[in-house]
Amino acid sequence: MYETLPLSFRVGFSAGSDIAPEETVPAAVPGNAQLDWANAHEYPPYAFADNFKEFSWMEDVYWIYKAEIPATEIPDGKRVFLATAGIDYEFDVYADGEKLLYQEGMFTPVELDVTPYVKKGFTLTISVYPAPKIPGRPADRTQAAASVKPPVSYGWDWHPRLIPSGLYEEVRLEVRPVAHIRDFETRYLLTDGYRNAEINADVRVSQAGGTVRWTLLDRSGAVAARKEFPAEEENTAAAVLRDVDLWWPNEQGEQALYTSVAELFSAGGEKLDEKRQRIGFRDVELKMHPRAGIDAETFPKGRNHAPIQLMINGRRIFCKGSNWVHPEIFIGTITRETYEKQLDLAKDAHFNLLRIWGGGIVNKESFFELCDEKGILVWQEFPLACNNYEGTPHYLAVLDRESQSIIRRLRGHASLAIWCGGNELFNDWSGMDDQSLALRLLASNCFRMDPMRPFIPTSPLFGMAHGNYVFRYPDGRDVYEVMPERHNSAYTEFGSPGMSDVDILRTIIPEEELFPPKPGGAYEAHHAFGAWAGDTWLCPSTAEYYFGESKDLEELVERTQFLQARGYVAIFEEARRQWPVCSMSLNWCYNEPWPSAANNNLISYGGRPKPAYYAVKESCRPQMASARVRRFLWKKGDLFSAELFLLNDLPEALPALRVKAFLTLPDGRRELCVWNAPEVGPTGNRQGPAAVFRLGDYADCTLTLTVEVEDRPELSSQYEFLYRNPGHKKPDESKALNQ
Amino acid sequence: MYETLPLSFRVGFSAGSDIAPEETVPAAVPGNAQLDWANAHEYPPYAFADNFKEFSWMEDVYWIYKAEIPATEIPDGKRVFLATAGIDYEFDVYADGEKLLYQEGMFTPVELDVTPYVKKGFTLTISVYPAPKIPGRPADRTQAAASVKPPVSYGWDWHPRLIPSGLYEEVRLEVRPVAHIRDFETRYLLTDGYRNAEINADVRVSQAGGTVRWTLLDRSGAVAARKEFPAEEENTAAAVLRDVDLWWPNEQGEQALYTSVAELFSAGGEKLDEKRQRIGFRDVELKMHPRAGIDAETFPKGRNHAPIQLMINGRRIFCKGSNWVHPEIFIGTITRETYEKQLDLAKDAHFNLLRIWGGGIVNKESFFELCDEKGILVWQEFPLACNNYEGTPHYLAVLDRESQSIIRRLRGHASLAIWCGGNELFNDWSGMDDQSLALRLLASNCFRMDPMRPFIPTSPLFGMAHGNYVFRYPDGRDVYEVMPERHNSAYTEFGSPGMSDVDILRTIIPEEELFPPKPGGAYEAHHAFGAWAGDTWLCPSTAEYYFGESKDLEELVERTQFLQARGYVAIFEEARRQWPVCSMSLNWCYNEPWPSAANNNLISYGGRPKPAYYAVKESCRPQMASARVRRFLWKKGDLFSAELFLLNDLPEALPALRVKAFLTLPDGRRELCVWNAPEVGPTGNRQGPAAVFRLGDYADCTLTLTVEVEDRPELSSQYEFLYRNPGHKKPDESKALNQ
Repeated sequence: MYETLPLSFRVGFSAGSDIAPEETVPAAVPGNAQLDWANAHEYPPYAFADNFKEFSWMEDVYWIYKAEIPATEIPDGKRVFLATAGIDYEFDVYADGEKLLYQEGMFTPVELDVTPYVKKGFTLTISVYPAPKIPGRPADRTQAAASVKPPVSYGWDWHPRLIPSGLYEEVRLEVRPVAHIRDFETRYLLTDGYRNAEINADVRVSQAGGTVRWTLLDRSGAVAARKEFPAEEENTAAAVLRDVDLWWPNEQGEQALYTSVAELFSAGGEKLDEKRQRIGFRDVELKMHPRAGIDAETFPKGRNHAPIQLMINGRRIFCKGSNWVHPEIFIGTITRETYEKQLDLAKDAHFNLLRIWGGGIVNKESFFELCDEKGILVWQEFPLACNNYEGTPHYLAVLDRESQSIIRRLRGHASLAIWCGGNELFNDWSGMDDQSLALRLLASNCFRMDPMRPFIPTSPLFGMAHGNYVFRYPDGRDVYEVMPERHNSAYTEFGSPGMSDVDILRTIIPEEELFPPKPGGAYEAHHAFGAWAGDTWLCPSTAEYYFGESKDLEELVERTQFLQARGYVAIFEEARRQWPVCSMSLNWCYNEPWPSAANNNLISYGGRPKPAYYAVKESCRPQMASARVRRFLWKKGDLFSAELFLLNDLPEALPALRVKAFLTLPDGRRELCVWNAPEVGPTGNRQGPAAVFRLGDYADCTLTLTVEVEDRPELSSQYEFLYRNPGHKKPDESKALNQ
Repeated sequence: MYETLPLSFRVGFSAGSDIAPEETVPAAVPGNAQLDWANAHEYPPYAFADNFKEFSWMEDVYWIYKAEIPATEIPDGKRVFLATAGIDYEFDVYADGEKLLYQEGMFTPVELDVTPYVKKGFTLTISVYPAPKIPGRPADRTQAAASVKPPVSYGWDWHPRLIPSGLYEEVRLEVRPVAHIRDFETRYLLTDGYRNAEINADVRVSQAGGTVRWTLLDRSGAVAARKEFPAEEENTAAAVLRDVDLWWPNEQGEQALYTSVAELFSAGGEKLDEKRQRIGFRDVELKMHPRAGIDAETFPKGRNHAPIQLMINGRRIFCKGSNWVHPEIFIGTITRETYEKQLDLAKDAHFNLLRIWGGGIVNKESFFELCDEKGILVWQEFPLACNNYEGTPHYLAVLDRESQSIIRRLRGHASLAIWCGGNELFNDWSGMDDQSLALRLLASNCFRMDPMRPFIPTSPLFGMAHGNYVFRYPDGRDVYEVMPERHNSAYTEFGSPGMSDVDILRTIIPEEELFPPKPGGAYEAHHAFGAWAGDTWLCPSTAEYYFGESKDLEELVERTQFLQARGYVAIFEEARRQWPVCSMSLNWCYNEPWPSAANNNLISYGGRPKPAYYAVKESCRPQMASARVRRFLWKKGDLFSAELFLLNDLPEALPALRVKAFLTLPDGRRELCVWNAPEVGPTGNRQGPAAVFRLGDYADCTLTLTVEVEDRPELSSQYEFLYRNPGHKKPDESKALNQ
C-alpha cells in the first residue's frame, strides 16, 4: 500500500450539495453519516423498540462531509490521489469551491488526482445526495426501483425502514509515485483436465518506462513462475503452470491459494510499486441435473430445466448453505471481523455456498477474501430485488457502470461462483422477464467481462423454487409433508421462523410489552407480526397449534425455536435426499442486520447462533444417516414410517455400514429395523428400507427417531416429532386397552 | 447502385485452395458450384429417386471459381471494389497468386478494393473449402456443430443430404467514387405513445469533405424531413418526425414504409453517391401473457412463463403463421420471385409471422424487403439447430463475426420482430442450456447492437411447446383430443403430415415404385418412410386406421391430404381459442426445399399449395366462427359436442351476431343450437354454448359440422369428422332399430 496523508472528516446536513451544513459532527470513516449524527446527538439505541423511526428525516437531506487538508509539500515524482472503493450513493466531490466529480452509484471506485490542491491546502467536501426515491411511490422498496441503491434499506420483512449513506468504505489520500501500477489482474484457464493453468497477468501502469516483474508464488511462498519485461502502459505476462494445486470448496478439498505479484521498477532499478492478488485455480460451471428434461416424454414438448448444478473442477457438488444478508444496517460499520465471525460459523456448519441476495449490498473486499480462504462459494446478485427495474436510459447507464465496476472488482476471486441478476425478478410481484433491458444488460456485461463464470438472470428459474417460509402451511400441511412431494432442482430460498433468544428480546422490547407478545408495538417493529403473510414471523398460532398456550416468554421462545430447528432439518435433509435432481439447499436467511424478535435466520445479529443453527449443522454433515419422515405430528393408530438414507457429499465413497432405526416412545425404545447398507459411491446417496411402527395409545409426547450407524456414531442422526393424543386415558386404563 | 465491370466465373474442383482445377465449367453467380458441375455434366435430375446421392463426393473437394479481369482503365477519383453479400462457407480470395482474404462464414459481406489489380488485369480466384465437418462424427447434422454453416444440408427429416456452397449471392466489381458512402443506417425510437419518432440517420463516408444530405420521404414521396451538413467520416442526422404513419403487420393496419435517403455531394456540388433505406416505424415487444405466473398459488414457487406475446405499437396480437425453410436446396438459385410467390401465399392465408428456423440460411435481402411490404413479421433464428454448439474459441470467434454481420444487415427491417438463438437448443437432443457460451454471445451481441428488439435464446422456452408432428399420437389419441388439454403460451412448431400431389410424386418416384408405397426406395429418399419417429411422414398406418386399405395412389394421397388438413384445422383454431394465454400458432412447416413424397408442409416445392394450405387459410380468417370438438373419430351412441366460439384477431370489435350450429348426418341436417352472441371486443374471443347431439346408428360416413353466422357467411365455418360403425345393419334393419 501507499503512504497516506492524514484525513479526518466531519459531517453535517444541509439542503443542497453546495450548501454548507449549519453544524458538523465527527464522522467515522468508514461509516455512515446517519449514525455519526445520532451518536453525536445521543439518539437512543436504534435497535430498541421503534427508535429507528427517529432517523427517517435523514433520508431527505444532503449529508456534507468536510475534511481540511493542510498545505503539504509533495516531492517531484509523487502524486496524491483521493481514493475510495465507493461512496453511497449519489454525490459530488469538491476541492474548495471546485467540483471535481459527480457520480451516481456506490460500487464504482473513486480515484482523483488531487496533488495541486494538496500542495496549497484545501477543504475537501463530499456531498452525499438524499436517498434516491421514485416520486409518488409509497415508502417501500418500490422507491428504489430506478436506482442501483440496495432496496433493502427502504424496509423489508426483516429490515426496518432505515436508509444509510455516505462514506461506507475507507477514504484515503494516497501518495503514489508518478509511475505506479494502475491495474493488476490475473486471468487463467485450466487445461488438460484441470491439471495445468494457462495464466495471463495484465499489468497496467500509469506511464511506460522501467521494468515490470510478475511473480507467482505458491502456497509455501516459493516462486512458481516469474516474468520480467520493459514496462509498457499495458502489459501481459503469460505463463503455463503445470500440476496446479486446485482450489476446492469447503470439505471438497483444500483451498489452495497462490499469490500473484506485480512489481514496477524504475529504469534505475528502484522499486516503485507492487500489487498482490491471491489466486485460487478452479473451474466453475452450471450444469443441468439428471432428468432435467421434464417434458421429455410428452408432446407438445417444452424446454429443459435451467442448469443449476454446480460443477467445480469437473466434479458436481451438492451446495449447502444459506442466504446472506448484510450483517449491519449501517453498512459502513461492517469490518473484516464482522464477516469472519459469521463466515467461520458458516464453514463450521458444513456450508459451501452463500447466496448474496440482491436486495442488499455487494459485500466489501474482505468478505470475498475470507470466502476464498474458507472455501465458501459465493452466488453474487446484482442490487436488484422484487422490483420492476424499468430500463430507462438513466437507470441503464448507472447500472451499466456499476455492474462493470462490480464485475471488475470481484472476478478475480476463486470463491465467486455465480453471477445473478437479482432476486425474484421473474415472479409476479416483480414483473420483470427475459426481455427486461436491465437483465439483458447484466447478461451482456457478465459475458463480455467474465465469460467463464455462469450467469443467471434471477432466482428462481425454471426448475428451481423459493419458499415457503413457515413451518405449517396455510393449507394445514407442515414442511415434512410438503417437501418430499416437491422435486425442484434447487431450493434457493426456504424459511422456518423462530424467535430470538430471551436476552436479545430484552434489549429490543420494552419490559411491559415482553409477554405475551402482541401486534402493533415493539414486537411488530421487530418483525414478529405483520412482517409477511399470516402472523409472521412469530407465528404464535403455529406454536399454539402444536403445544397449546405458552405460560411465559421463555416457553414461547423455546417452542418457536424448536419448531424452527425441526423445520430446517426437514428441508435441508430432504433437499439432500433429492440429489442428484436437487443440488442446492439454501435457507432464507443466514444472518440479520439488527436484532429481530422473530425471523427465519440461523444466527442472530452480532453472530450468535440460534438453536436452528446447530440443527442445520447436524443436517449438513457431509456423510450421515438420514430419515425421510412424511409428517411432523402423529397420533394414536398412525403407521409411523421413516425412509432411511445414507447421504454422502464427499468425493470419496462411504463404505458398507450397518444402520439401525429406533423409535423412543413413552413406553421405551423400539428397534424398527436393521439395514445392512452397501457402499455409497462418491457424492451419492443410497435409499434404504422404510422402517415402520404402528403408534399406540400414549400421553402427549415427543417421538424420538434415532438412526444409528454401527461403529460410526458421528454418522448417526436423531429426529424429533410430536405425538398428540387428546383422548388419552390414565395410565392403568391405557394399559388395559393395550392388552 | 454503382457502375459495375463485367464479371464472369467458371468453376471446377481441386484438392486444395491454391491448386488449379483440371476442368472448369461455366458458373452461375449467384448459384452453387455443385449445381454448375451437375448441369455441365448432365447429371440426372437430383430430385428424382435418389439421384441426389451422386452429389456426395462434392462435399469434400475445393471448389475453385475463376474470373479473368482484363486490364481496365480506371479514372482518377474512382476505385473498384469486389463486393458480395456472402460466400458459402470458408474461402480464400486471390488476385493472381496473391491471397487477398481468408474468411470463414457465409453471412459476413466481402468488400475488397481491387483497383490496382483491375488496372493491370488479373485472374480473380475464389477458392471455397470443403464442407465443414467435425471429424469422427456420423454423416448427419452433428458434423455441422462446430461451424456457422446451416446444418440442414447435412440431412434432415425433410431435406436430403446435399451440401451446397460457393457464390450464392451476387458478386460485383463496383466502380465507386473515392469518396463514397460506406454505411448508411437509420435508427429511431417511437415516443409519445407511438405518435412521434426520434430519428437518427448514421452516414459513414470513405473520406471527409463535401456535403451529406439526408432526406426522409413519406409514402407519397414527399419530403418529410431533410438535413444537410459538411461530410465528416461519421455523420448523424437527427430529426423528430411527428404523427408518423405506423407500420403494422398484415391485417392489423397498413404497412407504411418511408424512404430514408443519404446523398453525398462533392465540394463542387457534384452528387457522388446515394444510398436508400426503407423504414417502417413500429415498436415491438415481447410480453408475458395473462396467467403467466403458473406457480403463483403454491409454495415453493418457480418462475413465470417466458414472455412470448408480441406487442406491436402497444397492441398485443395473435401471431398466425408457419415455419419457413429455404425454398431451394441450392440456395444460390433463390430469387426475389421465389420468395414473392410463397410470401404472397402466406399473406393470403392471413399469416402475420414466419419463423425462420435456425437449421437453414438467413434469407437474402429481398426476403426481408418483401416481408416489410407484406406485413409478415419475421422471427429470425441464428444458424444453430438441434446440436450442441460447444463454445470453442474458434467457433465463438466465427459466430461472433457472423452474428454481428447478420444483426447489422437485418436490424433496419420493420418486419424483423424477434431474434432467436436457434432451434430446440434447450431440449435433450441438443443439450445446450442457458450457460452455453454461444447463446450468451448471441444474447450479448443482440443487446449491444439491437437492444430494442426482443431476443430469446431458443424455442421452445418455458411455457411454449413444439410438436407433435402426427395426426394420431403413439398413444392412440388424435390432435383433436390432445390440443384442448394443453395450455401453452405459444405453439411454435406442430405438424400434420400429408403426401404431395400425385403429379408431383410422378416426378420423383419411379413408376414401378409408385403404388403401394414401400420403405427403402425412392419414397424413403423423399421422406415418406423412416424420416422421423414411427412411419413418418407418409404414416400409412394412420390412413389405414381411419379409412382401411387404399385402392390406388390417388385414394391414398387424397386420404393423407384430408387428414393433414383436418389436423391443421384442429391445431390452428385451438391455439386461437386459447388466446390470450396462447398468442402464437406456427405450424411445422410452411414450404419445402425440394419435392417430398410426404411432409408436414403447406405448400409444395415451387409454391403449389396442398389442400392443407386452404384449410389453414380458412382457420386463420381474422374474424370467424369456430368450434372446439374434442375428438375426430365418432361412433354410434357418442354424444357429439361442439363448443362454439367467435374469434376476433382484429383491432376492431365484432358486433353482436346470431350463430347456428348444424350437424349433417346420413339422415339429414340437424340444427344443434342457436347462439345469440353479444359483441366480441377487439382482439378477443367469446366462448358460446356447447352444441350436443347423440349420434345414432348410421353407416360409416363423414360428419359435417357447420357453424353458420347469420348475414355474415364469410364468418361461417365448416368441419369434417369421421363416423365409423362396423356393426351397422342394413338400412331397413337400422330403421327398425331407430323406431
